[in-house]
Amino acid sequence: SFVLNYQNSFLNNHALQSLLVLNSLPVCSPLPGVSSATPTEEMNGAGNLMDFLDEPFPDVGTYEDFHTIDWLREKSRDTDRHRKITSKSKESFWELIKSLLDAWSGWVVMLLIGLLSGTLAGVIDLAVDWMTDLKEGVCLSAFWYSHEQCCWTSNETTFDDRDKCPQWQKWAELMTGHAEGAGAYVLNYFLYVLWALLFSFLAVSLVRVFAPYACGSGIPEIKTILSGFIIRGYLGKWTLLIKTVTLVLAVSSGLSLGKEGPLVHVACCCGNLFCSLFSKYSKNEGKRREVLSAAAAAGVSVAFGAPIGGVLFSLEEVSYYFPLKTLWRSFFAALVAAFTLRSINPFGNSRLVLFYVEYHTPWYMAELVPFILLGVFGGLWGTLFIRANIAWCRRRKTTQLGKYPVLEVIAVTGITAVLAFPNPYTRRSTSELISELFNDCGALESSQLCDYINNPNMSRPVDDIPDRPAGPGVYNALWQLALALVFKIVITIFTFGMKIPSGLFIPSMAVGAIAGRIVGIAVEQMAYHHHDWIIFKNWCRPGADCVTPGLYAMVGAAACLGGVTRMTVSLVVIMFELTGGLEYIVPLMAAAVTSKWVADAFGKEGIYESHIQLNGYPYLDVRDEFTHRTLATDVMRPRRNDPPLAVLTQDTTTVEDVEALIKDTDYNGFPVVVSRESERLIGFVQRRDLTLAIKTARQKQDGVVSSSVVYFTEDAPQLPASNPQPLKLRRILNLSPFTVTDHTPMETVVDIFRKLGLRQCLVTRSGRLLGIITKKDVLRHMAQMMNQDPESIMFN
Amino acid sequence: SFVLNYQNSFLNNHALQSLLVLNSLPVCSPLPGVSSATPTEEMNGAGNLMDFLDEPFPDVGTYEDFHTIDWLREKSRDTDRHRKITSKSKESFWELIKSLLDAWSGWVVMLLIGLLSGTLAGVIDLAVDWMTDLKEGVCLSAFWYSHEQCCWTSNETTFDDRDKCPQWQKWAELMTGHAEGAGAYVLNYFLYVLWALLFSFLAVSLVRVFAPYACGSGIPEIKTILSGFIIRGYLGKWTLLIKTVTLVLAVSSGLSLGKEGPLVHVACCCGNLFCSLFSKYSKNEGKRREVLSAAAAAGVSVAFGAPIGGVLFSLEEVSYYFPLKTLWRSFFAALVAAFTLRSINPFGNSRLVLFYVEYHTPWYMAELVPFILLGVFGGLWGTLFIRANIAWCRRRKTTQLGKYPVLEVIAVTGITAVLAFPNPYTRRSTSELISELFNDCGALESSQLCDYINNPNMSRPVDDIPDRPAGPGVYNALWQLALALVFKIVITIFTFGMKIPSGLFIPSMAVGAIAGRIVGIAVEQMAYHHHDWIIFKNWCRPGADCVTPGLYAMVGAAACLGGVTRMTVSLVVIMFELTGGLEYIVPLMAAAVTSKWVADAFGKEGIYESHIQLNGYPYLDVRDEFTHRTLATDVMRPRRNDPPLAVLTQDTTTVEDVEALIKDTDYNGFPVVVSRESERLIGFVQRRDLTLAIKTARQKQDGVVSSSVVYFTEDAPQLPASNPQPLKLRRILNLSPFTVTDHTPMETVVDIFRKLGLRQCLVTRSGRLLGIITKKDVLRHMAQMMNQDPESIMFN
Repeated sequence: SFVLNYQNSFLNNHALQSLLVLNSLPVCSPLPGVSSATPTEEMNGAGNLMDFLDEPFPDVGTYEDFHTIDWLREKSRDTDRHRKITSKSKESFWELIKSLLDAWSGWVVMLLIGLLSGTLAGVIDLAVDWMTDLKEGVCLSAFWYSHEQCCWTSNETTFDDRDKCPQWQKWAELMTGHAEGAGAYVLNYFLYVLWALLFSFLAVSLVRVFAPYACGSGIPEIKTILSGFIIRGYLGKWTLLIKTVTLVLAVSSGLSLGKEGPLVHVACCCGNLFCSLFSKYSKNEGKRREVLSAAAAAGVSVAFGAPIGGVLFSLEEVSYYFPLKTLWRSFFAALVAAFTLRSINPFGNSRLVLFYVEYHTPWYMAELVPFILLGVFGGLWGTLFIRANIAWCRRRKTTQLGKYPVLEVIAVTGITAVLAFPNPYTRRSTSELISELFNDCGALESSQLCDYINNPNMSRPVDDIPDRPAGPGVYNALWQLALALVFKIVITIFTFGMKIPSGLFIPSMAVGAIAGRIVGIAVEQMAYHHHDWIIFKNWCRPGADCVTPGLYAMVGAAACLGGVTRMTVSLVVIMFELTGGLEYIVPLMAAAVTSKWVADAFGKEGIYESHIQLNGYPYLDVRDEFTHRTLATDVMRPRRNDPPLAVLTQDTTTVEDVEALIKDTDYNGFPVVVSRESERLIGFVQRRDLTLAIKTARQKQDGVVSSSVVYFTEDAPQLPASNPQPLKLRRILNLSPFTVTDHTPMETVVDIFRKLGLRQCLVTRSGRLLGIITKKDVLRHMAQMMNQDPESIMFN
Repeated sequence: SFVLNYQNSFLNNHALQSLLVLNSLPVCSPLPGVSSATPTEEMNGAGNLMDFLDEPFPDVGTYEDFHTIDWLREKSRDTDRHRKITSKSKESFWELIKSLLDAWSGWVVMLLIGLLSGTLAGVIDLAVDWMTDLKEGVCLSAFWYSHEQCCWTSNETTFDDRDKCPQWQKWAELMTGHAEGAGAYVLNYFLYVLWALLFSFLAVSLVRVFAPYACGSGIPEIKTILSGFIIRGYLGKWTLLIKTVTLVLAVSSGLSLGKEGPLVHVACCCGNLFCSLFSKYSKNEGKRREVLSAAAAAGVSVAFGAPIGGVLFSLEEVSYYFPLKTLWRSFFAALVAAFTLRSINPFGNSRLVLFYVEYHTPWYMAELVPFILLGVFGGLWGTLFIRANIAWCRRRKTTQLGKYPVLEVIAVTGITAVLAFPNPYTRRSTSELISELFNDCGALESSQLCDYINNPNMSRPVDDIPDRPAGPGVYNALWQLALALVFKIVITIFTFGMKIPSGLFIPSMAVGAIAGRIVGIAVEQMAYHHHDWIIFKNWCRPGADCVTPGLYAMVGAAACLGGVTRMTVSLVVIMFELTGGLEYIVPLMAAAVTSKWVADAFGKEGIYESHIQLNGYPYLDVRDEFTHRTLATDVMRPRRNDPPLAVLTQDTTTVEDVEALIKDTDYNGFPVVVSRESERLIGFVQRRDLTLAIKTARQKQDGVVSSSVVYFTEDAPQLPASNPQPLKLRRILNLSPFTVTDHTPMETVVDIFRKLGLRQCLVTRSGRLLGIITKKDVLRHMAQMMNQDPESIMFN
């Protein structure tokens, strides 16, 4: 039952899914009992650094589901493997080739990840395009064409006319022959809602039946997995397949969600899939996590077409253990993925990026004020969203609501579709909306947002159009955008966390882009009508192009995304890659910094950390600073009135005693001491190894009976001849358990756990064993301290 | 004498300098005795985690010069400080303001670093421009104008004519009235060499007299400092001033060196300078290093105009401890620096970047072959350069050569100037050369490299000129470039490491750019003349613009820089920021990867690591993987036949004994055990603390005499009434020394030293103290193992 790799069989998933249904567990936090696990569950598997290559028992060195890996041990195992291959490589030419292949396998895996995740992203983009348009109409020349593809070959010249090419027919036109009128509107409305409901029903059903882990954005779980937790099946083949399909359905249904987070999950599934090709990665949980970190970078790279931003996202936001070697490989995977996506060319513009923008005017110092205000808005939105969403998810977890995930999805989709259709800015897909909001109004632009009143005396250059007074279309658009803003803010809170794949990036950016565009138009009109005001006087002469509302939309999007996720460098770099110039980095940074500060003032945690906490995953954040004065002795177990620590002695315990200890306790490991009187620590032994060893000995080794003495020393103890044959167990003893003294500040202990990836640590005083601290003890203590004194972490 | 901050007084430097002269120590490795320091020198200062805010003695918590800091202790001290401020901030409004100021001081420091290093970089650029041109001539209208500035206002229209504007006069023209002819040539030649000699003489004299630490690139030392070593004065005010001035002189003298490495050093000096404004940074060596990491990013940012590349350079190449908070702040500092530099606008083109390029044609798959060949060349050049330069530097260190640094600089400058003048590609400054090599030949280009034969029937579009046959100018340029290549390769080996500021980036890039341009022109001409060859058939039709020789130059530059420094991600990102498009990332990456692989096959270390090793700095590289099977017991001291470890007992040692121990040994710290028989470890005490405590007690505490017992326990030992008053020293005892068992693999020990930044670690077996491992022991062991089995680190 202890298969190391994550690969998921249909049965496993099915079983888990039924489990979820039976227990009516909250949707999208499908880890039963994680938050209530006893601390001692953590204890199995010390940093056993003996030679694992000739393992005495088949299962030594594996981990159980929902347990934490031991980074030091994984690293040590990899070194052993590596050493073995290196020494073998000198023996024959074939072994040398094998060792070279092994050294190159990392690059091969990266290449494969890049190719597959790029391809999947391209396919998802194409499918989403087609299915989103399917809600409104169909292409007569070829039904598998999206609206844009359908009209590419059309003869109409202007953008506006081309949009209404005859090959593309709305449902009402196709069914009744009438394109206009109330009847057609109602029919289109009805079919729009119907398609949306159909897509979301399909999505939630597929998730429920085939892969419960495919729901949500996946980033909180991936962060937890990368920090060393085992969630079997979370990155399996079924999850990959179902998440890809349901992501298309969910995005096409018009719900307020994006594909970016789930794409990271999909890329990580690809990474895990290719890990299984090479024993170097499939048999080592530490090495596997290096690959997954790179896969996360590839995921963001294809989500935004921003390879450098993707690598920094993986470094800043997702990864836990990120050696420099991984940085380089992540970059390679991210680039391969981005170029694969570009060669598929789903956007039809041979651009790599999702929202390509080009602005023609610089920004002015005075504009920093609205940019910073947008930053404040982003921070407030981040705080509001996180609080409201967490509260709603908690309610879903703890009340009857969680029992009806399908109904919930249907209801939210229904409300979304009904409210979204009448407003042109919510009817279309969110990425199209963002793209339009980011765009500067060119001379050929025909959208409502660009309905400015032109001065008839003025010739119209293609670029660099001066500021003009807004026409009725712009005022109309402002109202619709304001309504869309409120709608998006409210509906996103209820959407994120439902039992379908759902990313947060796009909705957050949409909220920010709408707010930013509104502010941008307001500033633009102010500057046009009041260019004698002192604030505009210096930089905005009449007839000049001073304000670019599209830039405001972009700054707003960055601010809101920053407020929700608390990304900093990677956010700015992603935005930099979108615009492709350093010119606008200062506005983006100003907004991102403000947004982070404002949001941090209300609570340090981003949405991912909040969901990790909500679900009780054992995640030790690298960024949290522990600043309390507690000592190891305050945290270690046993506590003052607890029974003493369960220990083994090096040469006086009998097989019987050991069996009784295993039966009576559920600790997953036991320290071994010289004698109960001296309590000098000599090592640590794992429960599983102990059980297996005694079982094997009883079966195979003659003379081992219940009264046999178990010894961990080099030589057998001096026993009377009448005694039964003793059992030597030094082989399974970890002779280098990690220890700290009882006076060690918890701050240092936390640092050690974090940096060395420990699972437990023994506490001694002048060589005597006093107790044990597990990762869960550390986490619980940190949470306690945080609640006691929340202010102390506000600064620094 | 133990002032914590690095600030350097003139006297200190002067004293050091005389020391250097007296000992005839090697130039540019001015750390006397570092490589021969005894391992026990390392031992002072354990992770003493008691409250250092009410320090019992004034000097507790400081470090001596050429010693390693204890990262855990620094972190703990910062937490204490922070905790104090936080608790105080609740007392009054003023304290709250102070705590807010403290929280913001990090950002203030970053802002100041960005402003100052940006300004300095701008000033350096302007001064170098002027002084480089001064070697050839002078501006009559204003002597402080460079050639380009002088001719800006000129009326000539073509580039070629404008270059020869009447205001700018060459020396011969000014002195003799004749601009042409053999006499003028000889006079110009003579004055060119004379100016070069004058500049370099000034540079080396200033360095020798005022700031010996100002020589070299500084990156190896900064890496060492960031890893936790103390080199007092290395980042001082004098170094900053002298390095800035001499950098201008050295670059202007025309030597084969660049300003990029020294700019990092200058930026770090700025960082250190501003640290002294805030006690948060000046009194904590750990926090100071966070600031220095960010300063390094700002340095690269201004060197190339590449802020993101700068941050990644700091992360990948320079830094040791790089928390995420630092990432964000580094980015801020790098941006501020870049924008300050841009507002100074030293290049006169309002571009941020040093070599701005824009190519008009894409690259083709088949071109990957020459790109990879350039990568191989870069790797070979890297290997050759590192080996030859290290051999030469070793020779300088060990022979008479090192005694005459001024003569050496004069000689090398003389040879450089004499050989450089006749060749137009070596006469000008190296950055101009690189800039020209990177450039695509536009229609208006008048340089020799763009002397192609035009088809008279063809109209000349401004961009996108088709491939044309090379004219005589191109063939001439090829010969000159080939000579320049050989010259640069040879002279750079002798230049890097002399006693003047010298960076490696520009010379390396020049070598690569020359090689790349030659290859590029060769491929272009092949494609033109043989476009029916199978390799060109598919992508290069006659009359098309297939090959961009400038791109080859850029790829070659990246390859050579990669081969020498072994940068990977940061290299590609810097190049990406130069070109500003993802289009050319694949060629750059292909070359960078090949170059790194080829170079790594001959030896893992880049030039900086090699210099660190040559100078014997105690630098524990994060990237080296330790893969040997040795255990802690093989490395710890005392060795088998050594005298036993010098320890103190907790309550039986007398003051006399302690004084004798301090006198007889030079260890900087002593473990404290329960008794000599049990050898149970209770803590670690520093030599300095012990000396100070006993001295203070003897002076101030009545009854403390030589026979007084020193005790480290909570309560005084039970002594006969006749005994003198005992001395309690628990206060200076570190109760949480770091321990490992003797069976711990060295691999784990190395990991612990690296990740926790330890200085020493005690070794125990079942609670008994066995020995001690210091950082130097670890380094020596690693070096030993590496030499034994160099192959084992080749893969992975």
